Amino acid sequence: MNGRISDGMQAEQVVKAFAALSAAQAARLARAASRKLAVLSEGTRNKALETTAKRLEENATRIVSANEEDVRAGEELVRAGKMSAATLERLRVTAKGVHEMAERVRGVARLPDPLGRRVAVTELDEGLVLTRETCPLGVVAVVFESRPDVVPQVASLALKSGNAILLKGGTEAARTNEALISIWQDGVAESGGLPDGAAQMLQSRADVMELLSLERDVDLLIPRGGKEFVESISRQSRIPVLGHGEGICHVYVHEAADLGKAERIVMDAKTDYPAACNSVETLLVDETVAAEFLPRIVRALRAAGVEIRGCERTLAIVSSGAVRAATEADWATEYGDLILTVKVVGGLNDALAHIHEFGSGHTEAIVTEDVEAAETFLNHVDASGVFHNASTRFADGYRYGLGAEVGISNGKLHARGPMGLEGLTTYKYKLRGSGQTVAEYKAGRKFTHRAL
Amino acid sequence: MNGRISDGMQAEQVVKAFAALSAAQAARLARAASRKLAVLSEGTRNKALETTAKRLEENATRIVSANEEDVRAGEELVRAGKMSAATLERLRVTAKGVHEMAERVRGVARLPDPLGRRVAVTELDEGLVLTRETCPLGVVAVVFESRPDVVPQVASLALKSGNAILLKGGTEAARTNEALISIWQDGVAESGGLPDGAAQMLQSRADVMELLSLERDVDLLIPRGGKEFVESISRQSRIPVLGHGEGICHVYVHEAADLGKAERIVMDAKTDYPAACNSVETLLVDETVAAEFLPRIVRALRAAGVEIRGCERTLAIVSSGAVRAATEADWATEYGDLILTVKVVGGLNDALAHIHEFGSGHTEAIVTEDVEAAETFLNHVDASGVFHNASTRFADGYRYGLGAEVGISNGKLHARGPMGLEGLTTYKYKLRGSGQTVAEYKAGRKFTHRAL
Repeated sequence: MNGRISDGMQAEQVVKAFAALSAAQAARLARAASRKLAVLSEGTRNKALETTAKRLEENATRIVSANEEDVRAGEELVRAGKMSAATLERLRVTAKGVHEMAERVRGVARLPDPLGRRVAVTELDEGLVLTRETCPLGVVAVVFESRPDVVPQVASLALKSGNAILLKGGTEAARTNEALISIWQDGVAESGGLPDGAAQMLQSRADVMELLSLERDVDLLIPRGGKEFVESISRQSRIPVLGHGEGICHVYVHEAADLGKAERIVMDAKTDYPAACNSVETLLVDETVAAEFLPRIVRALRAAGVEIRGCERTLAIVSSGAVRAATEADWATEYGDLILTVKVVGGLNDALAHIHEFGSGHTEAIVTEDVEAAETFLNHVDASGVFHNASTRFADGYRYGLGAEVGISNGKLHARGPMGLEGLTTYKYKLRGSGQTVAEYKAGRKFTHRAL
Repeated sequence: MNGRISDGMQAEQVVKAFAALSAAQAARLARAASRKLAVLSEGTRNKALETTAKRLEENATRIVSANEEDVRAGEELVRAGKMSAATLERLRVTAKGVHEMAERVRGVARLPDPLGRRVAVTELDEGLVLTRETCPLGVVAVVFESRPDVVPQVASLALKSGNAILLKGGTEAARTNEALISIWQDGVAESGGLPDGAAQMLQSRADVMELLSLERDVDLLIPRGGKEFVESISRQSRIPVLGHGEGICHVYVHEAADLGKAERIVMDAKTDYPAACNSVETLLVDETVAAEFLPRIVRALRAAGVEIRGCERTLAIVSSGAVRAATEADWATEYGDLILTVKVVGGLNDALAHIHEFGSGHTEAIVTEDVEAAETFLNHVDASGVFHNASTRFADGYRYGLGAEVGISNGKLHARGPMGLEGLTTYKYKLRGSGQTVAEYKAGRKFTHRAL
């Protein structure tokens, strides 16, 4: 097929042709598509989302049976010890799951339009008006592992924000992903008015390596996966990368904490979903409440199957059978598992110092009834999420009310924390004049610089 | 001195001690300072700016005489052919120049506080409120060439936005920069309440190489210089980099252009300051007005000493003595000089295609009286600045009304175009709860997600 796309081709053929495109060709096509997507009306984008959502539901059987093949192959790998049971679980797609995917696509359609928002309007002078307006980034590439529901989630956010998208999923979900992207492309084509190449799936690992060098045609790269995966992509790419390396989150139980709240929050933050990046890894306990709180929380954690690694002062308070000694490396480790390090600290400043030394800037929480101490914590801690009396697990695009989430960023530039539609937009300055030149202003004419 | 800073030291000694710090030590000190700067009140930051502005003026003689030494050394280099006359000019600082530096610092003090702005407030549920609030990036490093006025300009923007700053200037301005940073540090110390290490100057080229690897202690790197300089920094750094590689700007004279405006705009965009990145490099002329406009604009450009390189159709219209043939490479070149390429295009779509192929996403202008064509241009062109009937030279932080400018970004992430105070900030999510856990919501409790 040579990767040639012609107008007369059926959607299925187009998908096959896309599959034959190199990453560079796909990115070129995406760039061309992005020029057209950027100027589509909100109505056209939303209609396409509604159509694809419907198509997904209509094709639930096809998606589930493609997934069954992936799962069967995955079961072999689990038996051979080449895949974890957790990865296999993340791979599974049910008919209910397809329905949820479709509902989420509809949810994205209902979000406010992120494009064409006038962030600022300034009159520079009479007849010379500057408008700063949101617009799409252009071409966004997402490289992800296992979970196939990433395909409609990310594709819908990209379409809503007028971006072309390049996706590369894990080989373990290849059949499911292929079915999803093919149905997605059918829906987009059926909706009408959208360019070819708005959403494409890259096929091979070699494509990913090629992708990293395509800075001319790809504006943003979002790796979704483990720490080493994200770091390796960041190191090798010349394209800006947003992602999160790690989540070493802390809960600090202050001297004025309500210990009931503290227990609920710590249990939730550790056990609700230990593999999540917003789960707590280290519990900091104020020395004034350590004797009361530690035995209680250790009992609850142990009952939930949590292994505890404590500092010397923790070991001195809690019977040593329940807690083993933490090493220096423990404080800097994201377990992503039912393991928690515990440290007794001398007060708020101690807690801040520990968090700034070992935290990853993801999410940090204080439990206290002292509002002043809470505000000091929220102001001083340098992290994307700073929480008072709430579980670190709330750090999530859906819970934050951003709609779906395209990823979480640990960096401070562009998007910090859960990244929704806004993270997929940039802005441009539109200047509307009537023949003005800079030389006039150098010669003495004054700017008015009036906000409109 | 070993780079040790103790409380009892005089400012002069502190400067000398700083000078002995390695880049890694300086960055560590800057990180510690950034924690304190982030929570200073607006009043404290502004007072420090006022004090340093005063100090600069009081020390004008010291600055000018340090500069005279740099200029004398520079003159030697110019005579030896090792420095351009333009670089030498950019190096010069007069007493009036020092006064302007001080005035600009005062101007930064008067800008609205960029910190603590509540960008969004969302009630997630009763008693669970999420606030997104602006805060400093932390530690910003700026590597720049020749112009010493960058020191107070960037240091004032950093201080206003609560960031610690690491500066590295060119060796050709070493004495001037040293005087400026030393006076700046005196002013900051005199103002009181500010941490040591808020503003530091790195000394050697080796420091820059070391700096590039300090991603733990430096949040943003801004290289200000030529294209190769910026690209080399970007390639080698693991720290996020904002800067502009090049400015290949176009002016498109549409079929419905007022040719008087077109002439004024082209002349301004090319000749006002040819070395600036926002100067025009290529003039696109609609074929319907080419026969009328080209002879006229070529005459004016030639009279202003501009060399013109044209496409075949341009050469066919204008007498060949005035215009030489453009090569393929010319369209992709930023001259930064009195050279302009000229191309006759078939219409708006042709112009858009040329701009998207050769433009650098900096600033693009259309000259037309047809508002619809203008809006199509502004919406379709993918660049940080899209102008209608105005010179590309307006793309500048001061002219845009942003106050001073820390740099211009050609990238689309974080800050696009002229970057003022906002580019030096990020945001954090503050979540204030009353003991909430995610498990409750998984069990059926609903979020309210209400904008407050």
